[in-house]
Amino acid sequence: MTRIVALCGGVGGAKLAYGLAQLLRPEELALVVNTGDDFEHLGLTICPDIDTVTYTLAEKENAAHGWGRNAESWHVMEELGALQSDTWFKLGDKDIALHLTRLQLLNHGKSLTQATQAVAAKLGIKHRILPMSDTPVRTMVLTDQGELAFQDYFVRLRCEPKVTGFRFAGADRARASAEVMAALSAPDLQGVIFCPSNPYVSIGPILAIADIRRALEARRVPLIAVSPIVGGQALKGPAGKMLRELGRDISSLSVARLYGNLVDALVIDEQDRSLLQQRTTTDPELVVTRTVMSAREDRVALARRCLALVERLPLG
Amino acid sequence: MTRIVALCGGVGGAKLAYGLAQLLRPEELALVVNTGDDFEHLGLTICPDIDTVTYTLAEKENAAHGWGRNAESWHVMEELGALQSDTWFKLGDKDIALHLTRLQLLNHGKSLTQATQAVAAKLGIKHRILPMSDTPVRTMVLTDQGELAFQDYFVRLRCEPKVTGFRFAGADRARASAEVMAALSAPDLQGVIFCPSNPYVSIGPILAIADIRRALEARRVPLIAVSPIVGGQALKGPAGKMLRELGRDISSLSVARLYGNLVDALVIDEQDRSLLQQRTTTDPELVVTRTVMSAREDRVALARRCLALVERLPLG
Repeated sequence: MTRIVALCGGVGGAKLAYGLAQLLRPEELALVVNTGDDFEHLGLTICPDIDTVTYTLAEKENAAHGWGRNAESWHVMEELGALQSDTWFKLGDKDIALHLTRLQLLNHGKSLTQATQAVAAKLGIKHRILPMSDTPVRTMVLTDQGELAFQDYFVRLRCEPKVTGFRFAGADRARASAEVMAALSAPDLQGVIFCPSNPYVSIGPILAIADIRRALEARRVPLIAVSPIVGGQALKGPAGKMLRELGRDISSLSVARLYGNLVDALVIDEQDRSLLQQRTTTDPELVVTRTVMSAREDRVALARRCLALVERLPLG
Repeated sequence: MTRIVALCGGVGGAKLAYGLAQLLRPEELALVVNTGDDFEHLGLTICPDIDTVTYTLAEKENAAHGWGRNAESWHVMEELGALQSDTWFKLGDKDIALHLTRLQLLNHGKSLTQATQAVAAKLGIKHRILPMSDTPVRTMVLTDQGELAFQDYFVRLRCEPKVTGFRFAGADRARASAEVMAALSAPDLQGVIFCPSNPYVSIGPILAIADIRRALEARRVPLIAVSPIVGGQALKGPAGKMLRELGRDISSLSVARLYGNLVDALVIDEQDRSLLQQRTTTDPELVVTRTVMSAREDRVALARRCLALVERLPLG
């Protein structure tokens, strides 16, 4: 019964995922989430994008931080500091409760997909949040300071090193989960949406899994992407800085060209309407709408626009 | 340079260990701690006795609870409850910080001995806290409700099932750590002390390790035990109930007979002076003193008495 598959990373992707979840029944929507940011820390399996999507769907996200739980406290982290243990990656007390719950599930032999499902159910979420793979894939950032694990680059070094490329360690051996493949091959599928997430390090790792890439290339439904770049900058995170350091304009047109003919249309913000004139015939169609999601209603409005676009476009 | 090896379990043992640590330099004292209570929970390795000894030596124990940290908060546990995850075994926020620190050490390939040492150092402890073995040994309680894992019996079922015996799963294959064996064979060793811990489930698992038992049997120094029974009851925990259910009087004389000729003398409380008349010639020597350790000074006083006794006794 899957009608829409949405690929997403963290904050921006989670917001559109939330909008889609308000408009589609649980069986109609599958959210395929990047796990390239995942890592092992303090013995816990940290899944930043899965958790951001989970917290956002549960309306428990920390909007101020852009990660972690709302109404959070920091007692464990304070004591880790007192013990001179690692504190560079912040985990609140409520967040640690979720991580311990996941750790117990994983230690009892559950797959990441099963553990994610169980945690989501505990938070009252009925829509499917699907890790792109149960096999670990780890995004490595190639920089002027050498190759860095994603969280080293992103959190510890605050995205300061200059990026020269990416490597998705493990992606060559990783299989998409059965649940992801089932969603992508659902007979009722009407479209695929790339949420407004970083094309390099949020959507990129998902596309690096051969099963998923092949299924998308062979699809018979429209595929639209929503640009994370608005008015010459990324709404959140290092996408803009990465585009520039890799020699591209910080522009939705660059995003369109990164996705190329894999996508049928790119949704761009009304602030970037002038890009319509710069588009060439080899670029994907550009569709202008308001993409900035400040309030919850904005998420639903953008989701509605995306679903309408999917219905309007010819089959892929 | 080890002069004294003390074997101990939780609260009572930890108190005497604290007293000994005030009188002996770090290199002079080795504390060999029961790991039979350890278990895996929420993906964490829980080591109740090691942690009680550690917190007590660091003066951070929760005296009211008899387990865990002082000045503790419970935010993670509350959220675990909200997530309907396991909450029957209580872990405070500060305690979880210690457990995550240990988990990270273990995941990085450290032995339990090394991890215990590293955690103790973070808390400013210089004396050696040595897990009896780096191989897991798990105390199983045989009861009228079947065989129960120790924490199921102790915490979940509040010691209610009637005990018929014990099994120390893994003890037959477990080796004492090199650090424990080095302490027991130290050329300067002057004596061994069994702290006032439960003879069945605190000292028992340590003695179930063949390396340790053999070393104690072959020792050339005095071995004294301090009874955990005072005035017809255990000061803490199920030792009294266990003695009764296994057909023995709740009395220090029962403890003396459990240890038998493995020990040279049993230290009993002044409240139990009348036991001197009941002692038979096959029982270990009984030495009367104040064993109740209400204040920190009591711990030091009892430790001083034990060290004096070790010096007075003939070589074992």
